[in-house]
This record gives sequence, structure tokens and C-alpha cells, in this order.
Amino acid sequence: MTATPRIVIVGAGFGGLFAARALGRVDADITIIDRHNYHLFQPLLYQVATAGLPPSDVAWPIRSILRRQRNATVLLGEVEAVDRARRIVRLADRDIPFDYLVLATGSTHSYFGRDEWQAVAPGLKSIDDATAIRGRILRAFESAEMAVDPERRRRLLTFVIVGAGPTGVELAGTIAELARFTLAADFRRIDPRSARVVLVEAGPRVLAAFAEPQSMYAQRALEKLGVDVRLNARVTQCDAAGVQLGDERIESETAIWAAGVAASPAGRWLGAPTDRAGRVLVKSDLSIPDDAGVFVIGDAAAVALPGGKVVPGVAPAAKQQGRYVARVLAARLAGRAPPPPFAYRDPGALATIGRRCAVIEFPFVTLRGWLAWWIWGIAHIYFLVGVPSPIVVSLRWLWEYLTYGRGARLITGSEHVD
Amino acid sequence: MTATPRIVIVGAGFGGLFAARALGRVDADITIIDRHNYHLFQPLLYQVATAGLPPSDVAWPIRSILRRQRNATVLLGEVEAVDRARRIVRLADRDIPFDYLVLATGSTHSYFGRDEWQAVAPGLKSIDDATAIRGRILRAFESAEMAVDPERRRRLLTFVIVGAGPTGVELAGTIAELARFTLAADFRRIDPRSARVVLVEAGPRVLAAFAEPQSMYAQRALEKLGVDVRLNARVTQCDAAGVQLGDERIESETAIWAAGVAASPAGRWLGAPTDRAGRVLVKSDLSIPDDAGVFVIGDAAAVALPGGKVVPGVAPAAKQQGRYVARVLAARLAGRAPPPPFAYRDPGALATIGRRCAVIEFPFVTLRGWLAWWIWGIAHIYFLVGVPSPIVVSLRWLWEYLTYGRGARLITGSEHVD
Repeated sequence: MTATPRIVIVGAGFGGLFAARALGRVDADITIIDRHNYHLFQPLLYQVATAGLPPSDVAWPIRSILRRQRNATVLLGEVEAVDRARRIVRLADRDIPFDYLVLATGSTHSYFGRDEWQAVAPGLKSIDDATAIRGRILRAFESAEMAVDPERRRRLLTFVIVGAGPTGVELAGTIAELARFTLAADFRRIDPRSARVVLVEAGPRVLAAFAEPQSMYAQRALEKLGVDVRLNARVTQCDAAGVQLGDERIESETAIWAAGVAASPAGRWLGAPTDRAGRVLVKSDLSIPDDAGVFVIGDAAAVALPGGKVVPGVAPAAKQQGRYVARVLAARLAGRAPPPPFAYRDPGALATIGRRCAVIEFPFVTLRGWLAWWIWGIAHIYFLVGVPSPIVVSLRWLWEYLTYGRGARLITGSEHVD
Repeated sequence: MTATPRIVIVGAGFGGLFAARALGRVDADITIIDRHNYHLFQPLLYQVATAGLPPSDVAWPIRSILRRQRNATVLLGEVEAVDRARRIVRLADRDIPFDYLVLATGSTHSYFGRDEWQAVAPGLKSIDDATAIRGRILRAFESAEMAVDPERRRRLLTFVIVGAGPTGVELAGTIAELARFTLAADFRRIDPRSARVVLVEAGPRVLAAFAEPQSMYAQRALEKLGVDVRLNARVTQCDAAGVQLGDERIESETAIWAAGVAASPAGRWLGAPTDRAGRVLVKSDLSIPDDAGVFVIGDAAAVALPGGKVVPGVAPAAKQQGRYVARVLAARLAGRAPPPPFAYRDPGALATIGRRCAVIEFPFVTLRGWLAWWIWGIAHIYFLVGVPSPIVVSLRWLWEYLTYGRGARLITGSEHVD
């Protein structure tokens, strides 16, 4: 009798979690390691950053998602290295041995070599990022209410979002609505509706992953909300008091970074070749070139598509890769022939621009406007698989939709207003 | 024509908020200052600390509560001093002038001169306290799952709550339930049901504010949940690895402090006489002896009752005092005769011990058991005045009641598991 094979999965995002779940009936010891105790529904994280939903509506304990899967163990810990020769994953205070390794460590934003900007223009990747950004936005209004100097007040009421992908567009639209509707009556000395939201994009259009008509539509929708959209604009400097776009300086104390894709450390851990963005170049079965027992999936991997492109770093791709890798492993453990090479099925894309406005590109249909918004909403509720109480989340949405309220407007953490 | 009188209220707890609201129709400029941007429904804060409710279900932006009250301005800031001679409240970077001042600054826990214990046994007063305690409790289980040394594992699975007032009892009961029901199936290497919860009380019984039969009932209910209740036990030492009770040491990495009442700084700011707990001794109209324009209410005040006792530091007392002070001010501004001296109406007390178990003492009826629990629940929902979506909170409760789930099991913040 041989020992039960040990499969270690690092990262409980969409890729890692779907891999673990798809391995539910496999006779193996599965260990899933994450830095956080929660799986995050990243597509709705901007709602936490803009006080629309509380963190626990978009994040759920990994343990409770996997509680009934008896072959899976969840460990909370931060991976420091992978020793491929000795087949161990190294945490701060222990080594986890593996026979098969799946790295699903995601990606982070890229500051294009200017990592010092991160402190002044934070990105949005975790719950703590989101509550920190929420605190920054709300504190800016609080400080503006207190400010005596009109220059400072203007600077406090200017919000700059860098990067006009889905996250940037969603943030810009929602902050504009927060200022124009939710907060409008809350202050006495400032008019929150005078807040300025600037969306900065280095490329020639917003939502570059969509076709041009959708980009145009989204831009017009943002402008109708009062968002100042700056295309072909590159950030050349960034500090606590403003953002420099070439010759122009935008005075702002609140910048949020939603641009670029940066290397996950997976390539470094493995000593494996990566592309320019640091994604690990994987074979068509998602394993790395010289090690058939090590797989990289999701945003951490560069999976070639026919025609020289790579699979985009989106949730559906990570889920498909998670499920695929589970099939490869199940076949290998059972001594069956491997499945055919990974093939990406593009399910289309959705993005929302504030309330009642969204764009959708499905394989056979394109939609813009309020119907798209409702489909977006229903699709997201549908995908909230594993939510402890989807009905509560839905009701909260409906309530806030009807009242323009944003109930989670809490400033937490230790930073102070000044 | 004289200038509009300026009323400054410090603290937006029950006392300050009820004072501000009761002044809604008074022709005055009301400024309410708080360190946080939210009003906290403190009776449910233990639910946040034990992952039952997300923070935004028990805390609401002060601004949105007061948005329609046009004579009220909300300022987020920390008071550093009060200059009674110059009639100003001093914040870090500005002075707020007042004609009338209401201090409703609450209280904090007392470590009986051992403030260094606060770092190892934090108290539960703010949202940040609650999420930090939630993180500590959940991290203890995570670390226990990782621990190799059985001694350390036992220490990690031991929780000590100091103080058996309502908060201590509610925490002990809920942590016991968290371990026995919610987390029972979540771990692979430890059995959360083996966790030990110790409730330490210096006095001779739990819930000392209730009559003896209720104390006995609550103690039995706790013991049925597996809580180890230690009466007449005084903490003599406290460190990161355990709590000392005289000769006995309880090894534990998670202690929570729910004992004692400590001075709010109001007395120091005013240079006014206080009682031993630091509460400002006020006159029967809640103003301080030598200054008829300065009032202290709620937990920060010691209001004499006939017979030498003082009004207890509970939410209903703070609300009554807030409303009373508004009447005094309204009368004074209108040139009318002052209202009769403040009289405390005791509405009774409620405390819950986990699910389905509570004790109630109303003026004419005493209840214990499941009926008390339902009345407790309904009363709390009823008192969630100003909640953006009471129905959402209610549904969440019902859902968790039916499923034994606790949806808000997120570890946030920067502390790490080890």
C-alpha cells in the first residue's frame, strides 16, 4: 500500500478554491494554504471600498466553504519559499511536504517600478485594502468639513483613480455617486456634490478589454455622473498632495491605484521562466516546463492562447483552470490518460458604472444600460456561491438601491483625520 | 438681536446622540464631536467580537442619523482639553467655542492600576476593539490547528474572560457556542469543542446587577454550555501566556477584559470633583457645581440617587439624561423655568447567555429562559433606532439562529498568526 498522495494548493482565490473543490472525491490529502482566513469575492470588493457592503458580505471563511470536504485541510499562513528538490512549501515556522503543488497566488497591481507610490495611492486587493480605502475616502470628506483653507478643501474633495479597467471604472462611478447622492445632505460646511472624481487612463479608452462601442458608452456614463475621464494620460509623479500627469498636476489627497499587473512571487519561488509581468509560463496542462508535479493557475500563470495572446487574468479563467488542474491530477492519481490540453472558454465580460448602468459582452449578445445593470446584479448574486446568506446580501443591495443609502460608512483602523 | 447660542456636545454615544436629537427644534447651533464617525449600539458589540454580526450592523454614521437635523453639525475629532474660562473645547488643530457644553464621553474598563494588562487582555469598547478581539479569537483556533506542541495547543484553546457583568457573560456564552457549534466541523487537527472558556469574577456571583435567582440561573446556563465560572476570583497577574488567579495559573493566550469602570477624562478636562471611579459629580440638573453652563451625562457622570447610590452606567440612563439635558437647555434658552430635577426611571435589565437563554428583570416581571431570549431579541431590534436596514439585521439573526452560522468570521488587520 502506498501513502495517500499529498496535494498542496497555495492561494484560496477563485483558482485555488475551485481546484480544491473539484478534488473533493479524489483520494488524496489536500492542504490549502492562504494568507487570509477568507475567500474573497473580488468582483465586489469595490463595494466594500465605497461603503456599499460590509466586508463579511463579500468574503467568507475558507474553512466554512470546505468544512464538509473531509480530504481538505485549511492552513492560515504565508508561504516564504518552495523547495522543489525536497518537495516542500516553506512557511515561516514549518515546512509542508507535497507530492503535487498548485500555485494559485494571484497578482497585485504594478506601480511600474515606483513602489513608493503604493503608500499614497493604495491598490484594492484584500479586505484590509478595501476598509483602508473606505476610511480614506470618508476621512477626506470629514477633513474637508473641518478645513478652513479653501485650497486644502478642494484638494480633499478631489479623488484620483488611476487605471480605467473594470475596477477603476467601478470605483470612479461609485465614488461619484457617493458624493452626489449618499453624502449630499450629510455635511453642513461643504457640499459633497462639489467633489471631483478624476479617472486617469494611460491607454486611449476606458474598459480596454471591451469593444469600442462599450468603451464609448461607459465613458459617457461616467461623464454623466460628473467623472473627469483623462485618456492617454500617464502618471509621472505621485505624492500625498497630488498626482502629476506629465505637465499637469492634479491636487488631491486621495488617490487609488487600479492599474497594471505585477508579478506574483510564484515564478521566483519556483525558479521558473516568467513573462514580462512576472506570470509563470506554463505548459498546456498548466504544469511548469521541467516539473510535471507543479502547476500554476489563475493570475499567477501565463497560459498561451492560439494567436500569441494569453488567457486574461479574470475570475472565470481562474475557475476554469482550477477545475482543469483537478482533472489532470485526478487522472494522474488514477493512472488514467491525461485530459486534453487546457482550452479557455471566454464567457464574456461585465462591468458596471454606478447604479443602473453596465456593459455586457457575452459571446452572442452585447448590452448596455439599465438592463445590463440588472443582469450584472443577478449574475453576481448567482455567483455568490457559498455565501452564508445570499438573501441578506440581495436584500441589502435592493435596500440601498431604493434608498441611495450606503450602510457601511464606517471609518475604522488607526489612521486619524487631520 | 443676540447671536444664536452655541451648544457643543462631546460624544455621540446614547447620551450625546439623544441630547442632540432632543434639541432638534431648539434655535441653537449644535455641534456634536466624536472620535469616531459612527454611533455604536454598544449592547450588541459582543456580537461583532464573536463574528455574529458585521460592524456595520451595529454602528451607523452619526452624520446620517442627524442628516435631517439642520441645526446640528457633526465633527470627527478628538477632544484634548476644555478651557472653561475661555469657553472653548480644544481639538488637536482647532478650538470650538461654546456657550453651553454637554460632555457625554462615556467610560472605559478599569485595569485597577495595571494598565499594562490592556495589551494582553483588551477591552471591548469600539468597533476596532471588537474586530481585534474577533481576530484574536479566530487566530487562536487557527494557531491551534497549526500547533505541534500539545501544551501550546491547550493554551491556545483556552479563553479567559475577566468580569461577569452582562458583557462578560455574553462573551463567555457566545465563545463557548462558537467553539461547540459553529466551528465544530471546520478544523481537521483540533476539535474546537475541546476549547475551554473560563469566566473570572471577583464578586460572589455573575450578573451582580440582577437579583440572586437570575444570577444563579445565568451561572447554570453558562455551565451547561461548558463555561468554567470562577467566582470570588481576583486576577493578580496577566501576561501573553496566561492569567494568574491568586495561587492558580490559567494558561491562555486569549484573555478579554470586561471588568471595572474607569474614569472618562471629562473630570480632568473640567477640573471638577469626581467619585472614586472618576465620574464627575453633577448636580440634580446634571450641570457641574460651579458652572451652570456645563453638563456631564451618561457613564461619565455620577448622578446621586436617593439612598446614596448613583444612577447605573447603562444605556437607558444615558438616553434619559440626554433627553433631560435637552429640556434644561431648551427651557433656559427660552427663558422658561427649569424642569424638575433629573429622576431616573429604571426600565429593568436584560442579559443574554448565548442562544435561547436570557434573563430579564422588568419592574413588574422577571423572566428566565427562551422566552426571555426572544423578548431580548425583539427589544434589541426595536431599539435599533436609526438602523439603515433593521430588516437586514433581523434576517441575518434569524438566519444565523437557524443555521448556527456566524458569517462575519473574518480575520482582518495586520496581526499575524503564529
